Amino acid sequence: MKTRAVLGIDIGGTTTTFGFTDQQGNIFEERIIPTYAEQHITQYLPRLYKAIDEMYEKYKEEIEWVGIGIGAPNANYLRGTIENPPNLKWGGIIPLAQIFEEKYQKPTVITNDANAAAIGEMLYGAARGMKNFILLTLGTGLGSGIVVNGEVVYGHTGFAGEMGHIIVNEEGRVCGDGRRGCLEAYVSVTGIKRTVAKLLADYNHIGALSKVSFEELTGEMICQAALQGDKIALEAFEYTGKILGTKLADAVLFTSPEAIILFGGLARAKDFILQPTLRYMEQRMFGPFKGTVKLMLSELQDKNAAVLGASALIWKELEKKK
Amino acid sequence: MKTRAVLGIDIGGTTTTFGFTDQQGNIFEERIIPTYAEQHITQYLPRLYKAIDEMYEKYKEEIEWVGIGIGAPNANYLRGTIENPPNLKWGGIIPLAQIFEEKYQKPTVITNDANAAAIGEMLYGAARGMKNFILLTLGTGLGSGIVVNGEVVYGHTGFAGEMGHIIVNEEGRVCGDGRRGCLEAYVSVTGIKRTVAKLLADYNHIGALSKVSFEELTGEMICQAALQGDKIALEAFEYTGKILGTKLADAVLFTSPEAIILFGGLARAKDFILQPTLRYMEQRMFGPFKGTVKLMLSELQDKNAAVLGASALIWKELEKKK
Repeated sequence: MKTRAVLGIDIGGTTTTFGFTDQQGNIFEERIIPTYAEQHITQYLPRLYKAIDEMYEKYKEEIEWVGIGIGAPNANYLRGTIENPPNLKWGGIIPLAQIFEEKYQKPTVITNDANAAAIGEMLYGAARGMKNFILLTLGTGLGSGIVVNGEVVYGHTGFAGEMGHIIVNEEGRVCGDGRRGCLEAYVSVTGIKRTVAKLLADYNHIGALSKVSFEELTGEMICQAALQGDKIALEAFEYTGKILGTKLADAVLFTSPEAIILFGGLARAKDFILQPTLRYMEQRMFGPFKGTVKLMLSELQDKNAAVLGASALIWKELEKKK
Repeated sequence: MKTRAVLGIDIGGTTTTFGFTDQQGNIFEERIIPTYAEQHITQYLPRLYKAIDEMYEKYKEEIEWVGIGIGAPNANYLRGTIENPPNLKWGGIIPLAQIFEEKYQKPTVITNDANAAAIGEMLYGAARGMKNFILLTLGTGLGSGIVVNGEVVYGHTGFAGEMGHIIVNEEGRVCGDGRRGCLEAYVSVTGIKRTVAKLLADYNHIGALSKVSFEELTGEMICQAALQGDKIALEAFEYTGKILGTKLADAVLFTSPEAIILFGGLARAKDFILQPTLRYMEQRMFGPFKGTVKLMLSELQDKNAAVLGASALIWKELEKKK
């Protein structure tokens, strides 16, 4: 008997990763192709189809292909579209779910990467058995997937869960969206780099982080410096955790999650980010919620999270249709 | 044939209101008894039972009593309890749903007043046909009921939707919960009174609002003064709307509601509060959500909202069980 399997596709600005996955979260094979963000969708798709077809050819005797899940920037679950993603030159609103349904004749669901990651954690990761939690992706920006009663919240527009754009300070840092003081300008890999620059300005401190250009600085370097006790790096994590913890205390007031799960580059700093965030979150928490929220790290971080998330999305959808 | 009816009970710090309601939201009769907040629950309940029994006696030939819905401060829907309400001297955690189920042998559901009002608006008011919205009660404090996919969000603890305790300013006004700068210390009837006092301090202005003590000042007086063009009153609404609009722009990022509905004393100021709130909300809104959220007034404000909300709560529950 063939194994039921879905195709999970994660479309990023730099690479597209895909693979077939069974319902237990086992990936048959994962493959990565360049996205070439500057290409039009009509050039991108034939390349992706070809790569998928090659992979399917290899497994087609073994699997019964039952659906497709796609995680992508600016994806709208309700409409099945990708809408003006800032990092892809695809042009306008692309009905990607429909395009894949027509191409492969399989039910296809699409959502943004943070929502896909949230469903991935719920099926295979840190949120197994949880009905109410929030997942934050702390990478170049800050994405969020909010789960209420076991379902991702999409809201009226399909774009719910954009916690990266909570305002920290109206006169604060310029954000990619043209406004000022958005949370992601502080709490993300980019955000902590900006904080390091701010602290170098504040302290005029000579150390590991003063020897590298702003452009070359990475989250990994900040982590390494923190491990060696560098004052700027340690204070950068403290500052980041203070802002995140403070805003998470507010966030808890909305949906009262059982856990908040951190994922992505900044989450790799583990205790450096967890400890200050948890401390400030609890300190600022409204009484009835004190001690009710676990702050956790993703359990899929190093386990093909992107493909698992996209796969989990369509598995969850197929479950609903039963 | 008898009409199916539920008993809706709204327990407030000052009065308790109850009545039998049919599924279309028609109230047979509504009655109010004093709550006497300083009494223990064991003194309160017999008085309430007596009043209910008298009313039921009157309608028992006419109605088939199918359930009980209760709106009350600090009520926990998941646990069926009222937990340490600050304005009632009932003592500890009261399993009120169970108490009523045992007394009357009817399915009983309990939630806080803001959640009950949200369900009331969804069944009988401004949110008819909506699946995603937020209701704010702007009275002595600020309560909120958040609806996602047609269901009130209770979260992991059962206490979700406490937007009154979002932090506006960490060094700001002292709040009843012991922290500083909570939204309800600015945006509520009490909040706008405090703003009037602040503005009198700022401007040393002689006018309608400088002639009345802080204690005697009411929302109605501030509204009347605004109608007469009083500078302090107008600026107080502007200030309140700025803070509310700013925080609503953040709130929209979580659940992307179709509408935000204002209810309670401060909502009676209508355009005085709606206009600045909407203006600041739109100005500060993250791009993809601009123009997607209606800011509305409750449609149940003057229509027995409390009893309708509590009744709607149990009607919705009975629907689910079908």
